[in-house]
Amino acid sequence: MRIVVYPGSFDPPTNGHLDIIERAAALFDRVIVAVAVNLRKEALFSVEERVAMLKEATLEWDNVEVDSYRGLTVKYALQRGASAIVRGLRVLSDFENEYMMALMNRKLDSGIETIFMMTSKEYAFLSSSAVRELAELGGDFSDLVPPCVSRKLVEKFSARWRGREE
Amino acid sequence: MRIVVYPGSFDPPTNGHLDIIERAAALFDRVIVAVAVNLRKEALFSVEERVAMLKEATLEWDNVEVDSYRGLTVKYALQRGASAIVRGLRVLSDFENEYMMALMNRKLDSGIETIFMMTSKEYAFLSSSAVRELAELGGDFSDLVPPCVSRKLVEKFSARWRGREE
Amino acid sequence: MRIVVYPGSFDPPTNGHLDIIERAAALFDRVIVAVAVNLRKEALFSVEERVAMLKEATLEWDNVEVDSYRGLTVKYALQRGASAIVRGLRVLSDFENEYMMALMNRKLDSGIETIFMMTSKEYAFLSSSAVRELAELGGDFSDLVPPCVSRKLVEKFSARWRGREE
Amino acid sequence: MRIVVYPGSFDPPTNGHLDIIERAAALFDRVIVAVAVNLRKEALFSVEERVAMLKEATLEWDNVEVDSYRGLTVKYALQRGASAIVRGLRVLSDFENEYMMALMNRKLDSGIETIFMMTSKEYAFLSSSAVRELAELGGDFSDLVPPCVSRKLVEKFSARWRGREE
Amino acid sequence: MRIVVYPGSFDPPTNGHLDIIERAAALFDRVIVAVAVNLRKEALFSVEERVAMLKEATLEWDNVEVDSYRGLTVKYALQRGASAIVRGLRVLSDFENEYMMALMNRKLDSGIETIFMMTSKEYAFLSSSAVRELAELGGDFSDLVPPCVSRKLVEKFSARWRGREE
Amino acid sequence: MRIVVYPGSFDPPTNGHLDIIERAAALFDRVIVAVAVNLRKEALFSVEERVAMLKEATLEWDNVEVDSYRGLTVKYALQRGASAIVRGLRVLSDFENEYMMALMNRKLDSGIETIFMMTSKEYAFLSSSAVRELAELGGDFSDLVPPCVSRKLVEKFSARWRGREE
Repeated sequence: MRIVVYPGSFDPPTNGHLDIIERAAALFDRVIVAVAVNLRKEALFSVEERVAMLKEATLEWDNVEVDSYRGLTVKYALQRGASAIVRGLRVLSDFENEYMMALMNRKLDSGIETIFMMTSKEYAFLSSSAVRELAELGGDFSDLVPPCVSRKLVEKFSARWRGREE
Repeated sequence: MRIVVYPGSFDPPTNGHLDIIERAAALFDRVIVAVAVNLRKEALFSVEERVAMLKEATLEWDNVEVDSYRGLTVKYALQRGASAIVRGLRVLSDFENEYMMALMNRKLDSGIETIFMMTSKEYAFLSSSAVRELAELGGDFSDLVPPCVSRKLVEKFSARWRGREE
Repeated sequence: MRIVVYPGSFDPPTNGHLDIIERAAALFDRVIVAVAVNLRKEALFSVEERVAMLKEATLEWDNVEVDSYRGLTVKYALQRGASAIVRGLRVLSDFENEYMMALMNRKLDSGIETIFMMTSKEYAFLSSSAVRELAELGGDFSDLVPPCVSRKLVEKFSARWRGREE
Repeated sequence: MRIVVYPGSFDPPTNGHLDIIERAAALFDRVIVAVAVNLRKEALFSVEERVAMLKEATLEWDNVEVDSYRGLTVKYALQRGASAIVRGLRVLSDFENEYMMALMNRKLDSGIETIFMMTSKEYAFLSSSAVRELAELGGDFSDLVPPCVSRKLVEKFSARWRGREE
Repeated sequence: MRIVVYPGSFDPPTNGHLDIIERAAALFDRVIVAVAVNLRKEALFSVEERVAMLKEATLEWDNVEVDSYRGLTVKYALQRGASAIVRGLRVLSDFENEYMMALMNRKLDSGIETIFMMTSKEYAFLSSSAVRELAELGGDFSDLVPPCVSRKLVEKFSARWRGREE
Repeated sequence: MRIVVYPGSFDPPTNGHLDIIERAAALFDRVIVAVAVNLRKEALFSVEERVAMLKEATLEWDNVEVDSYRGLTVKYALQRGASAIVRGLRVLSDFENEYMMALMNRKLDSGIETIFMMTSKEYAFLSSSAVRELAELGGDFSDLVPPCVSRKLVEKFSARWRGREE
């Protein structure tokens, strides 16, 4: 059985993330979507909220599991018995960081491969930070994220939007 | 059974190609290394020579097969029952072309995924054209290609090298 | 009246080109689509064929004119009384060449501005050479080019496709 | 009448910004230079100071207006009746962010076009943050910004420079 | 006598930095490794610690000196009588910032040249921030930094690692 | 004595090349400008013409020598007793090829360093091929190349320009 880990911040999960999850789920036996706990970086949603949103958004795929982890991604992947780490590529700017991270991961444990998959053209320019910024400025994000994420974003920001209009 | 196609010109095959083949063979059930026949582009080695070199160089892996094909890569992949096309990424310059080709392939047949794998750092800057140029200028390419390719390159270029020295 | 020139090879025109033409026609008083005659570069379609295809494909816009020219683009733009040269940007790889060409044009005549417009996301990865290659390999290009271009491509390549199948 | 909006942080305005303003003013009927209010990002100059500096620096062009706005740029552009958003391109690093922002803007409102203009070669590597850093380190910025900005920078930093020398 | 300055944050020094120092020391008469004091940016190691680590790690080269400086790099290079500033290039992402900084330095003082040298392929993807992140996550960094830096990193992080395991 | 080799096609030499030669001559004891003989690539000027133009254009610098060579650049550099190969960097597109070539050179002979120097901002976007294209299209290249190159270009192209005007 081939298991892959799809790690990330998912703050919040977007339709681009779901697109990659669907593609990976079609290609491998099991996909573990893993929210990286980063204590230093301030997040919009808590790790628990992100795990819950991902669980709701991936309900339809039997071979997808959602988890969170601390520390090195390769160590986590090893513990979970994964053969590879899956990373989504959106645009050029992603590539170089991903390449360096993949080289670093390979150095740390040569048994885990990193493979890159492409999001659909529709989501090629979509990122969690773009969604956060759009939400903050009061733009419409409803077709960029799954419905459960959309509801949570409205909850978070509606007080702020009201404040601005007054 | 998950079959992937690893297409390319392989003119000649390099240690970087073999590195990707080995990585893909560890991750999928079957890897079809497929030499693309391009009638317009002048090649150093014939398609038959390239297939023969690849066969010799991949003898050790049971789940690797070597073939050649004409026409669209996605059509060939479909015919062979592949789930994905594997592409090796070396450096940034590769990325954009690969990305466009992957988008084009996806457009032509949405059932075939394209996944990118990274060559080892050792081969990150190695290409078939660099090997050809090095051979032409009389440089040492022996640790950049498999032994069978090295022998064929010496055959091709030794007359030319002699001519230059006279 | 603000006139802009949209120069290119258009070999053949694609839906991406038409997308830019439509956007420019909405922003400026007159758009001159100008096929650059390049005697050194071998083309699939003759200049006359390209002008004819562009004329048919741009019939619906009153303020769009199709022409061809030789020599420096800035000189042609000056002769036609244009304020700016319009260039479409598809992906990153375009940018640097365009930037250099724009700097060179500015150097040659500081009175002509170069402005860049973006194609729709739908056509962000589409190029004339991709269309030519697709046509040559027997792929389906019907939704990448205007109908009149599609018919011409079928004419050009149908003999070749028959030859391959035999 | 064709109105364009030229949005930015302008913290502080540089000669590169003025170069774009001058070019846009020659190409469109009205240019609205719009300082984006970003409450989260700490700025060197207040929005009021930035608007004042831009007003002083653009006095010579009749069809240039200076304003500030909150929220989404496309919404502001719509309210002002603009046909397009103008963005200056300096170097490659700009391009990708600009491209994504333009795609996002287009998604939010397809009636507003984004066009890119190039700064003069002289200012191709100049940015507000470079000016701020230069000022902080005590370097000479007098030919990188308009005189009114230069005076304001001297005011801001002279106390700091004195402190360091003691 | 040709003196060059090799400036940087060196927080901490890596084997990639030492690789550049060794190459520069073979090419120029004197290499001044200069730790830039940046009061705004929070650092892992103090300037004193960084200077001490660099001194220990460069003991073997007679023509290498370690120093620290404040303010503009070109001003410091001038004071030290240097002909050039040496910068190491790792990967593409470096290039553009370095290019801009070099242009800015040239503008400030045209008498100081900037030259770029390449790290060994082994260290092409290594950075101080990657080392810091690896240390924080409990990964093995022992062959990425000199032994004296490795010891200091263990000191800094061992308390943190213990805390996590409990 | 530190000798460096500055290799290239120089077809024709431009003011950007001379800018690098001047900078290298100020930094090293001897600069050997070396025209690479490439039998496969069709050139505008013969190797002899290029050497002659470079000699005339570099007359003023005592420590600059012009030569031509065949085969591998590193072998030639070794034969000439050089410590380093100098390469000029213009824009981003250069960087990656240069980086790969430098890695390849280092692999072939670890005793020769490659160092990169930046052209002046004035020539950052200038290349021999841009000059050739400009000359072919009848544009003004007089301030892009040294006077002796300008005369040779006029000789080469004047017949062609007359032909076009008739």
